[in-house]
Amino acid sequence: MLDQAALDTLFINARTHNGWLDQPVTPTQLQQLYDLVKWGPTSANCEPARILFIQSAEAKARLVDCMAATNADKVKAAPVTAIIGMDMAFPDTLPHLFPHADARSWFAGNQPLIEATAFRNSSLQGGYFILAARALGLDCGPMSGFDADKLEVAFFAGTTVKVNFVCSIGHGDVAKLFPRSPRLGFDEACKVL
Amino acid sequence: MLDQAALDTLFINARTHNGWLDQPVTPTQLQQLYDLVKWGPTSANCEPARILFIQSAEAKARLVDCMAATNADKVKAAPVTAIIGMDMAFPDTLPHLFPHADARSWFAGNQPLIEATAFRNSSLQGGYFILAARALGLDCGPMSGFDADKLEVAFFAGTTVKVNFVCSIGHGDVAKLFPRSPRLGFDEACKVL
Repeated sequence: MLDQAALDTLFINARTHNGWLDQPVTPTQLQQLYDLVKWGPTSANCEPARILFIQSAEAKARLVDCMAATNADKVKAAPVTAIIGMDMAFPDTLPHLFPHADARSWFAGNQPLIEATAFRNSSLQGGYFILAARALGLDCGPMSGFDADKLEVAFFAGTTVKVNFVCSIGHGDVAKLFPRSPRLGFDEACKVL
Repeated sequence: MLDQAALDTLFINARTHNGWLDQPVTPTQLQQLYDLVKWGPTSANCEPARILFIQSAEAKARLVDCMAATNADKVKAAPVTAIIGMDMAFPDTLPHLFPHADARSWFAGNQPLIEATAFRNSSLQGGYFILAARALGLDCGPMSGFDADKLEVAFFAGTTVKVNFVCSIGHGDVAKLFPRSPRLGFDEACKVL
């Protein structure tokens, strides 16, 4: 079991950040981050998430242009914003990733299953991404307010990748935090049967 | 930053379990688990996940009956299996959970947005659930092979909750692990722009 400080870092004291300190995220940290995320479980080990780390001024300007008005400034201020995409052609990776069964055939011709699997599992991987970033001492600012069609034209044209959500990472500015919103209690969200 | 032992517990050494030791999961652990999961970020703090912890013989028999053949035995052997659902009526909770804006109105009459938001965010919460369980010293066995229609009739009839996936929790039997499958490398899954 993790100690209290680790639980605080991952869950209890961690906050979604909208403002960012002028501190970089290093290429080593991006590699370390993915090298944690990749171990998280996915259905038939399908790993559909594809991640673009947006860092350069040119790429950032393209992304800002796709964001909802309230999110554009947040992206501008962040050192890195990750676009969490999902590869709808993930079944083609299964002979490599899940070699002990013909998992590709489970998806052949079943577009609704492909879409649900890509969405569910790239979202799970998004959850791993957020917690892995926090585990490495980074803060996160996940966002789903953007123009998905425009973003896909800007970043995924000619590919089989669709966007799921975006998430800034960096060192959050605690001075810019809002008060924390309430959470559903155990009895509101859970039942033991 | 978390220490190496914590990163190992959460990501690097953690495995998906199919076999389970005869060791219980306590009611206190279920409460602790949710009390970590609830802090994970969701869009507009919408927290759509609804969790049924299936523990009694009666409820387990109902769940086993909904699982794909290969997953039925896994559920039978596990001390607890969580059904991770998503409440499609989550917009009605937003006046309480996101009090500083009229977030309910963003969803009014927009069923595709409701469905995508519920699916994405309950999946994110599913990712938090898996890592929170591991953080508490438990093992996980997530599964999406089941008859969703049948499961919803058996557990969510007359409610606004749909099933997302199920996840056994307990103390995994390492003797029943398969060899670990490969993962996509950084250069296969990520790009820095």
